[in-house]
Amino acid sequence: MAEEAAVRAQAETVRRLKQDKADPDEIAKEVAKLLDMKAQLGADEGKHKFVLKTPKGTRDFGPKEMAIRERAFKAIISCFKRHGAEVIDTPVFELKETLTGKYGEDSKLIYDLKDQGGELLSLRYDLTVPFARYLAMNKITNMKRYHVAKVYRRDNPAMTRGRYREFYQCDFDIAGQFDPMIPDAECLKIVHEILSDLELGDFVIKVNDRRILDGMFAVCGVPDSKFRTICSSVDKLDKVPWEEVRSEMVGEKGLSPEAADRIGEYVQLHGGLDLIERLLQDPKLSQNKQAKEGLGDMKLLFEYLTLFGITGKISFDLSLARGLDYYTGVIFEAVLLQQENEHVEEPVSVGSVAGGGRYDGLVGMFDPKGRKVPCVGVSIGIERIFSILEQRLEASEEKIRTTETQVLVASAQKKLLEERLKLISELWDAGIKAEMLYKKNPKLLNQLQYCEDTGIPLVAIVGEQELKDGVVKLRIVATREEVNVRRESLVEEIRIRTRQC
Amino acid sequence: MAEEAAVRAQAETVRRLKQDKADPDEIAKEVAKLLDMKAQLGADEGKHKFVLKTPKGTRDFGPKEMAIRERAFKAIISCFKRHGAEVIDTPVFELKETLTGKYGEDSKLIYDLKDQGGELLSLRYDLTVPFARYLAMNKITNMKRYHVAKVYRRDNPAMTRGRYREFYQCDFDIAGQFDPMIPDAECLKIVHEILSDLELGDFVIKVNDRRILDGMFAVCGVPDSKFRTICSSVDKLDKVPWEEVRSEMVGEKGLSPEAADRIGEYVQLHGGLDLIERLLQDPKLSQNKQAKEGLGDMKLLFEYLTLFGITGKISFDLSLARGLDYYTGVIFEAVLLQQENEHVEEPVSVGSVAGGGRYDGLVGMFDPKGRKVPCVGVSIGIERIFSILEQRLEASEEKIRTTETQVLVASAQKKLLEERLKLISELWDAGIKAEMLYKKNPKLLNQLQYCEDTGIPLVAIVGEQELKDGVVKLRIVATREEVNVRRESLVEEIRIRTRQC
Repeated sequence: MAEEAAVRAQAETVRRLKQDKADPDEIAKEVAKLLDMKAQLGADEGKHKFVLKTPKGTRDFGPKEMAIRERAFKAIISCFKRHGAEVIDTPVFELKETLTGKYGEDSKLIYDLKDQGGELLSLRYDLTVPFARYLAMNKITNMKRYHVAKVYRRDNPAMTRGRYREFYQCDFDIAGQFDPMIPDAECLKIVHEILSDLELGDFVIKVNDRRILDGMFAVCGVPDSKFRTICSSVDKLDKVPWEEVRSEMVGEKGLSPEAADRIGEYVQLHGGLDLIERLLQDPKLSQNKQAKEGLGDMKLLFEYLTLFGITGKISFDLSLARGLDYYTGVIFEAVLLQQENEHVEEPVSVGSVAGGGRYDGLVGMFDPKGRKVPCVGVSIGIERIFSILEQRLEASEEKIRTTETQVLVASAQKKLLEERLKLISELWDAGIKAEMLYKKNPKLLNQLQYCEDTGIPLVAIVGEQELKDGVVKLRIVATREEVNVRRESLVEEIRIRTRQC
Repeated sequence: MAEEAAVRAQAETVRRLKQDKADPDEIAKEVAKLLDMKAQLGADEGKHKFVLKTPKGTRDFGPKEMAIRERAFKAIISCFKRHGAEVIDTPVFELKETLTGKYGEDSKLIYDLKDQGGELLSLRYDLTVPFARYLAMNKITNMKRYHVAKVYRRDNPAMTRGRYREFYQCDFDIAGQFDPMIPDAECLKIVHEILSDLELGDFVIKVNDRRILDGMFAVCGVPDSKFRTICSSVDKLDKVPWEEVRSEMVGEKGLSPEAADRIGEYVQLHGGLDLIERLLQDPKLSQNKQAKEGLGDMKLLFEYLTLFGITGKISFDLSLARGLDYYTGVIFEAVLLQQENEHVEEPVSVGSVAGGGRYDGLVGMFDPKGRKVPCVGVSIGIERIFSILEQRLEASEEKIRTTETQVLVASAQKKLLEERLKLISELWDAGIKAEMLYKKNPKLLNQLQYCEDTGIPLVAIVGEQELKDGVVKLRIVATREEVNVRRESLVEEIRIRTRQC
């Protein structure tokens, strides 16, 4: 481009003047010219290329979405606090090596930062690994904490289904050496409480144990070396039918057809205490040490869940495998059941909305001496929940407020800006949520319309007569009722009238 | 290394077996061996190199820091809501080109993401540019919003002074075409309210206007091309003395000594309405269109601030320049005044804790047709405020609670785990914040000690006799008083006794 050549020539002129230690004013003049040319060039380029969007797989949350988001967070965080959790926060990026070797195949989905000198960094992929790093780094062996924050995965986004590249996780974890299954049971109770609170419809929490899976593979004749790959085939059972999974096991992964068929019999099993008892009697499984331990703990877990009164929504499901590498014991996943929902026009296809399990080895991976801190935790997949709540709200008639403003300070005549400013300042200082229009002489109708549009319930109107009488006219937007309130009682009156808000 | 050679040899073996389509079980065996060897190699490497830390310039927030952080956020967000702001959120990264050309020299501090295919991304540098992008993208011409989120700058961290590479900003902005200085005055009112609420000690809010600065440069004889560079010299006046700034202007930047001296006279001026009036009479400044407009608006601003009753903390200061490129009108910055604070042993050196100004051109940079949306906003620099609050708390005797647990469910005898689980489940379902120790048979003393350590005010003790009598023994930790409460009244009793908590 000719323009680019001109910029280069000008840059050369500046360079030479500086080299020759020319008059500073002359240099400055030529530099200014260069900057102008560059800016012009940039502006021209901008016009052609500039795309106004957020990065792929991300989105803005506008005020309405934020109102929904904050409702959901409130329910979740209240539950975490009800269970006595502390809260922590960690940086959005970690040293790259902190994340290395924790996620198996999914590691390719990690966002790396550009090497700009200094450390190699990656955006966090979940909140579990940073938590384990935090425990090891601070030598903490005992902690119950929650963490609500965004995580990052370079996945193929399916945003209509609530799958994003930047998304929130709400995690609750219990770290420490305790008597078996007591913290594990609490994690399931938490999932039950949250999904019930949010009124997302019917759900089921599937439960299994990595030790039962491993024992099952062993007694079915899967060679040790194939445990993990067969496990990830089983993990697909929630999406594809058994026949397809079987042919992957036999065809691609070289499992014997007999072994696959034996697995096929187990993974269709799901139930409750009765199934656990039956498997504890199973002539093969009961001989396997791992399976026996897992089944024994599963029985204990169900006893505790019975005391919590939540076994109705729990299903011991031998097909549940879960993808992540770091689980070592109990695993679980909550799934919303497809429901006839009168609010939603087309049915929302949602998968898992919460998941978790026991990971007793992860903290040890960070400890220089490999000291283990057993952990169990749950992660609420809030984006899918947002999707459902958003679609439901859109279909409903509910009008959601995006501010909490109690009163609009308005005037009925002109030249009252100063009086409005004085009054609103008094209200702010008294802790009243108040707004005014940023106009010198707004029309009363426009001020009332603003209240209608934004849901402000009260209008405090200053007028010349009211000023003389030492009162303010308080208008109740919903009823159009108007009362004169003495200026010194106004704050109290607004408080009383908006108490229910 | 010999081990690495062995791994390579094993990889070759696997490759050959696969090529020869050998028995899948044999291949699997050799693959497993290879994986083992690789893992071993990785583990060995890990032992030598692994560093357990957060990235440079970042930090974890533990439960205590989070408690302080949430206190500060609460004060700030309450204020934003009191002023009727909506809330939005944007992604942590933006398209690189969204940030390009907005920050002048500081652009070198932007974190870029690695090019992993797809879009080029950068971490946000502030919340103002994403806000402008959001307005333009959604064609919003009118909005009052707040946004509390982390931003990222590859600066040299001075963490003891509260300067980090990852840090929170709390922004409040008003976008829209309004009558002059009404929104600008509200932004200053907000800074005043927040700094007063947080009880950070004495402070001053310096105010100036880019148009006054430009007018001043013009009448002092600064050539147009040097406005920006001389402005950034002036910006250093809060850190270095005038003599140094002057010699930079004359020596490095080639300004005439006479012009520099004229600037020197202006920038030492600060005051209130009286100073504004004086400058409006200044024979040179009053002839400059820009300066005249700026001074006229400054006068109006001070009139509104007088109505708000906050001019006592406001200083019209001709040395205030502020670094960012995008300001076009009023600029301001709040500074804590060094105080004799009995809580803090060594004095905390803090600079600016809030800043902002008017940027009428930024949204237009994103609009395809260049349509402008005037904006004014304030950003609270919360990290420095955290530093002060943290140091103050550390020096004080105050014990900060990191959970909100109301009651510990305990037992006095063995074999009561099931009863504890039943009771705690009832309490959770009634919305009571309750914990228990995750042990089958904890000692009563340990349970009471846990309450002492964590500040839990009540203990609900189940024992065999109490179970028979249908009561629970409720112990008040502070007074050691114990009362028997009927099981059906327990929830109500706990609520009453913890109402003040």
